[in-house]
Amino acid sequence: MPQKVVGVLGGMGPMSTIDLFVRIVRATPVAREQDHLRILIDNNPKVPNRTEALRSGDTTPVRDALCETARNLERAGAELIGMPCNTAHAFLDEIRASVAIPVLDMVDEAAREARELFGERASIGVLATDGTLSTRLYSEALERHGLTAVEPGPEAQRVVMSVIGEVKIGDVSEACAERLAPAVEDLSARGASALIAGCTEISLVLARHLPRLRWLDPLQTLALALVTEATGQPPLA
Amino acid sequence: MPQKVVGVLGGMGPMSTIDLFVRIVRATPVAREQDHLRILIDNNPKVPNRTEALRSGDTTPVRDALCETARNLERAGAELIGMPCNTAHAFLDEIRASVAIPVLDMVDEAAREARELFGERASIGVLATDGTLSTRLYSEALERHGLTAVEPGPEAQRVVMSVIGEVKIGDVSEACAERLAPAVEDLSARGASALIAGCTEISLVLARHLPRLRWLDPLQTLALALVTEATGQPPLA
Repeated sequence: MPQKVVGVLGGMGPMSTIDLFVRIVRATPVAREQDHLRILIDNNPKVPNRTEALRSGDTTPVRDALCETARNLERAGAELIGMPCNTAHAFLDEIRASVAIPVLDMVDEAAREARELFGERASIGVLATDGTLSTRLYSEALERHGLTAVEPGPEAQRVVMSVIGEVKIGDVSEACAERLAPAVEDLSARGASALIAGCTEISLVLARHLPRLRWLDPLQTLALALVTEATGQPPLA
Repeated sequence: MPQKVVGVLGGMGPMSTIDLFVRIVRATPVAREQDHLRILIDNNPKVPNRTEALRSGDTTPVRDALCETARNLERAGAELIGMPCNTAHAFLDEIRASVAIPVLDMVDEAAREARELFGERASIGVLATDGTLSTRLYSEALERHGLTAVEPGPEAQRVVMSVIGEVKIGDVSEACAERLAPAVEDLSARGASALIAGCTEISLVLARHLPRLRWLDPLQTLALALVTEATGQPPLA
């Protein structure tokens, strides 16, 4: 089966885009360099802040930037697109309408995997931006798959947003990850038996520094889905 | 000053492309996500093996693939191009002729930096593919800057090629790096007072596991040159 060219609609932020890139390369079965996937990345950090746009209601500049970037990937030869930014999935319908190639839904893929990993009717804590929470992206996706979403209280959510901001400008230190602890405790106290890292910046710090938690990483789910779709083969775990 | 959109002609191999991407992001001065550079990456591992092409003389498929990838980046909006593959620099003139945007010369930038770091008339060991050595890319660049290139003997060069092959398919372990030791000793015995990692796979393993050596990493030189050119500001060290 011929491979498909993978497009990555990235830059939100660049570190998450790098992380998805690494995960795709690691998950691709290869015997030599030429077996690797052709991957087109438009790392476009100029997309305005998604959370701020959703809060203010002025979403047109974000939508236009995302659709332009998707079209740019399609023109350059991408045959499917993955988007390593959860909040940008609020615009998934518009992005899909702007191109003729498939755009994977990282949020729905993650909810499906949460059900497989954590069981039917599990309560799942969602670590995400204010923007993602306000759109109820994860709540609705988890409910579609029979699960219950648990959101942090206001104080814990402020901690989450602060950590995300630090990671976006490049801090992926252990100290940064440890600052998430009160939010994790809050979700646990509210009944969550496992977590979804519903923001790519959260994935980065959890993966590096808090491996003891029971959690799911949508970025890894997306990487495996892209490799499966592009190679027609099972990805490397 | 408006930023320029950076193009990365990559995929040779993907790990080196990831490494350059990380280095560009880390070197870019930012206060928020939107300050990061827009970076277009065409990770194209389908470019045939450069060393084999240079050995056989059948270089047309390589040249065509490189020029097509450069044009793809230009069409997608890149305003300057960097290429994280030393051997591909044998085709730099043809690549430059195929686009209207600047393509930086990683090899020449590295030779210039070697003179600054290691002093005039220094002898510099070159760790590179057979293909790069056969083109004398580094020897000529170092000589242009008044330095002397030292190449490994045939036995040591076989070690270098074997390590490069392992890294290309994803092994960046300490064990892989340690296998380079006989080649490093051979270069030292031949009078080299410092090394150039003249193959991006070598950069990867030296950076991770052999930091005690006195060596220069053209991948880092290229990352800083791209950030300087694209932002018009000094890069972060």
